[in-house]
Amino acid sequence: MPIRATVWGENVHEQKNKFVAENYPKGMHGQIAALLSEDKNIVASTVTLQDVEHGLTEKKLDETDVLLWWGHAAHKDVEDAIVERVVERVWQGMGLIVLHSGHHSKVFKRLMGTPANLHWREAGERERIWVVNPGHPIAKGLPPYFELETEEMYGEPFSVPEPLETVFVSWFQGGEVFRSGLTYRRGAGNIFYFRPGHETYPTYHDKMVGQVLRNSVNWAFNAERHAHLMKAPNTPVEKAIEPIVERGAKLTHHPKS
Amino acid sequence: MPIRATVWGENVHEQKNKFVAENYPKGMHGQIAALLSEDKNIVASTVTLQDVEHGLTEKKLDETDVLLWWGHAAHKDVEDAIVERVVERVWQGMGLIVLHSGHHSKVFKRLMGTPANLHWREAGERERIWVVNPGHPIAKGLPPYFELETEEMYGEPFSVPEPLETVFVSWFQGGEVFRSGLTYRRGAGNIFYFRPGHETYPTYHDKMVGQVLRNSVNWAFNAERHAHLMKAPNTPVEKAIEPIVERGAKLTHHPKS
Amino acid sequence: MPIRATVWGENVHEQKNKFVAENYPKGMHGQIAALLSEDKNIVASTVTLQDVEHGLTEKKLDETDVLLWWGHAAHKDVEDAIVERVVERVWQGMGLIVLHSGHHSKVFKRLMGTPANLHWREAGERERIWVVNPGHPIAKGLPPYFELETEEMYGEPFSVPEPLETVFVSWFQGGEVFRSGLTYRRGAGNIFYFRPGHETYPTYHDKMVGQVLRNSVNWAFNAERHAHLMKAPNTPVEKAIEPIVERGAKLTHHPKS
Amino acid sequence: MPIRATVWGENVHEQKNKFVAENYPKGMHGQIAALLSEDKNIVASTVTLQDVEHGLTEKKLDETDVLLWWGHAAHKDVEDAIVERVVERVWQGMGLIVLHSGHHSKVFKRLMGTPANLHWREAGERERIWVVNPGHPIAKGLPPYFELETEEMYGEPFSVPEPLETVFVSWFQGGEVFRSGLTYRRGAGNIFYFRPGHETYPTYHDKMVGQVLRNSVNWAFNAERHAHLMKAPNTPVEKAIEPIVERGAKLTHHPKS
Repeated sequence: MPIRATVWGENVHEQKNKFVAENYPKGMHGQIAALLSEDKNIVASTVTLQDVEHGLTEKKLDETDVLLWWGHAAHKDVEDAIVERVVERVWQGMGLIVLHSGHHSKVFKRLMGTPANLHWREAGERERIWVVNPGHPIAKGLPPYFELETEEMYGEPFSVPEPLETVFVSWFQGGEVFRSGLTYRRGAGNIFYFRPGHETYPTYHDKMVGQVLRNSVNWAFNAERHAHLMKAPNTPVEKAIEPIVERGAKLTHHPKS
Repeated sequence: MPIRATVWGENVHEQKNKFVAENYPKGMHGQIAALLSEDKNIVASTVTLQDVEHGLTEKKLDETDVLLWWGHAAHKDVEDAIVERVVERVWQGMGLIVLHSGHHSKVFKRLMGTPANLHWREAGERERIWVVNPGHPIAKGLPPYFELETEEMYGEPFSVPEPLETVFVSWFQGGEVFRSGLTYRRGAGNIFYFRPGHETYPTYHDKMVGQVLRNSVNWAFNAERHAHLMKAPNTPVEKAIEPIVERGAKLTHHPKS
Repeated sequence: MPIRATVWGENVHEQKNKFVAENYPKGMHGQIAALLSEDKNIVASTVTLQDVEHGLTEKKLDETDVLLWWGHAAHKDVEDAIVERVVERVWQGMGLIVLHSGHHSKVFKRLMGTPANLHWREAGERERIWVVNPGHPIAKGLPPYFELETEEMYGEPFSVPEPLETVFVSWFQGGEVFRSGLTYRRGAGNIFYFRPGHETYPTYHDKMVGQVLRNSVNWAFNAERHAHLMKAPNTPVEKAIEPIVERGAKLTHHPKS
Repeated sequence: MPIRATVWGENVHEQKNKFVAENYPKGMHGQIAALLSEDKNIVASTVTLQDVEHGLTEKKLDETDVLLWWGHAAHKDVEDAIVERVVERVWQGMGLIVLHSGHHSKVFKRLMGTPANLHWREAGERERIWVVNPGHPIAKGLPPYFELETEEMYGEPFSVPEPLETVFVSWFQGGEVFRSGLTYRRGAGNIFYFRPGHETYPTYHDKMVGQVLRNSVNWAFNAERHAHLMKAPNTPVEKAIEPIVERGAKLTHHPKS
């Protein structure tokens, strides 16, 4: 059974900025989904901010193995209840790929527990993405480095937790560096942050970027869901695995007294 | 200059449960502060939930190098604005030691980005805390293991992110295990979670527990504050470190056009 | 194409100890291979210490995706040249699953860079293996814990590097704990250490143990080989990606002078 | 009591290359020790390859809290027995700071369990070292980045294990990046790798480099030594912490039978 990838697109600048519209006539989400569909093991669909419940209904999330998130201008318009819904799905095992300016999305900041800040410059400069972890599944099939001739610069420090693994580090023409591919697990959910993807540049038409996205969906996929991680159950003394006798003071009256 | 440690105590069960009151006549926070004061390099003070702004005023946090947090019954009574204030201080470099049931505090869950769930049993069973990382500063001076004859059980899975390092793992009489000492950094702030400390048992009168708490305060201390981590500044092309020429389309009108 | 798993067996105690021989009439390696073969995606074969080049010829390693290692009594009889051969394969991408007393094998210690010590007791006590990382691929399909009624005890501290992730933690009847499932990457090779497997007990007849082994082979598999990681090439200034002019003093005469 | 830092210098190119000799009239080790001595909490001494036992006698190591290692041309001349002696000291708690070309020293490769390869270019290009982990003790007092106008280039992938934390990432003029500051713990010993330091350039006269070295010595210091980590003791059933009865088959005759 193929992996069901859902691409969430903010779909704002596609409507307002002619460069973005020209770059991505089917929307950034549409183009990202097209990149994913080159992998026969992935079935990609799209939803947007403007859809009912931002397209992230319980039903849609039931049918999502890996969610990809691209947002920029309208992070604050994403309703908190939907954010919590997505976050709880990640904890239970849904994969999440956060793209570029999604570093400031409510969903990503909520899962990182940090501000996820950085410094930036929109100047169409050259970015060179180095593979620092060539054995990682997300780097499969990639050359030692690849270049995006015009990209926005993101510079360190990127205030996120130390990742499980650093997969990519970017060199920027203007003198900065950035950890561009970072993996996390939160609860049972795999999370990958991938830096490139400024909307006014043709990043999602790049072959290598497509390869990274497909790799990351395959890596993040987890067939299981772990609803038990949402609870903190009591294990009564009568059901202790090894027999024990209750001792000491309790906060509550003893059920048998 | 000594390290200024502030012990935050919920101070609820001390007022309501006679066992807790007998265990901790000066409050749990008071006894924790007493343990810290055995280190001449630490100056400990206490605040409680019931204080104005829960005792965590901007002024008090200005004077706090490391905050220790014990809460259980009243997590939901901690105001969100105070939680954000504490979290922002951690990001900028304040140390944080989260104790026992503080795993479910708003502050800890906010910083972890996970539910921080576990399973539990209040039966006064034996806990044996093993040092799995004897070279870690938080394990300084400890024997290979130490025991708490009556403690609450916390069982895995503990839904927190993979830590920077696992320092302690607990064995429980009833058959469970738990990763009892975990380190994190969020932004510039060091965070340590330490499992023991159920209020109806005399845990904070234990010598080894005192040693761990003092070690953890020394480890978490960071003299610097990093306010810049709270911002995501633009670095204009004119100020690029390496000279670059702006290219490509932009989201905004070019400032010079 | 299925994953080619090679099980390396020391095959010493099977020949000398009647309990081990009764437990494992086809050798421990044979039984481990049988467990793996329950997965249609795995083709398992076996080699032993007594084979030419310990069975680990260049040809055999060319045909190995994931190597499983069980040794105990004869670690020192494994030739150093074969150890280096195996280690270099791991660096280039071959997976490695190290079992039980293999913690003291030359291969594992070489890859960890630590003594990999622990304390131990052969008393047939109960081991309970808790899943602490339920979303990890190696924990797929497992219950919250499983038990081995008679096992050897291994106790902390286990002097290995902090792993990428801790998957399992064991509880022992005699009072110890142990981090029983640990993941690493060395070069491009995935490594998993799995604690159980004392030869006088029927551990490799356990269903859950079989599930862990099959999961770990699937997790460790990496189709790529990275021979370039074995070299430290010079990148001459004439071939710099960004044009630069050579400056400053050099260790060697300038090739053009 | 101050931290006793021992700087190990290979002291080969200082004798053979006039640029190196001019840069470092008291030897590279001498200049590194001078940088350390600016911290009143550090007492620095030097030893070299040419000394008896390479200067690393048992007595000298008894008096060493943190060892700094600079080598390049003569890695293979370091005797294996001395390498093992140093490695065992690290496991027991001695700190180790590995500098620049020391990435290929026997000591570092032995502790990493990887080839520690990279690609390189000696062209006197600009290196810009970015702090990616501003809260780390090794980054204390540093600006967001600092530059070395002429340095050797080291490029990724750097085949070392994923570190505990990445502290620095370098940008190179010729287009490469490198993870320039990496922390590890092996046994009880703290290890820091710091990239800059090519012998034909004035790197160890740089103020920021001095700050990093002093910070790293303070970070790596561990007052305790853990000789027990060198052993794998049996814990006999009679001395089990929790009383257990021996069961099952054994490899050896029962001592009481």
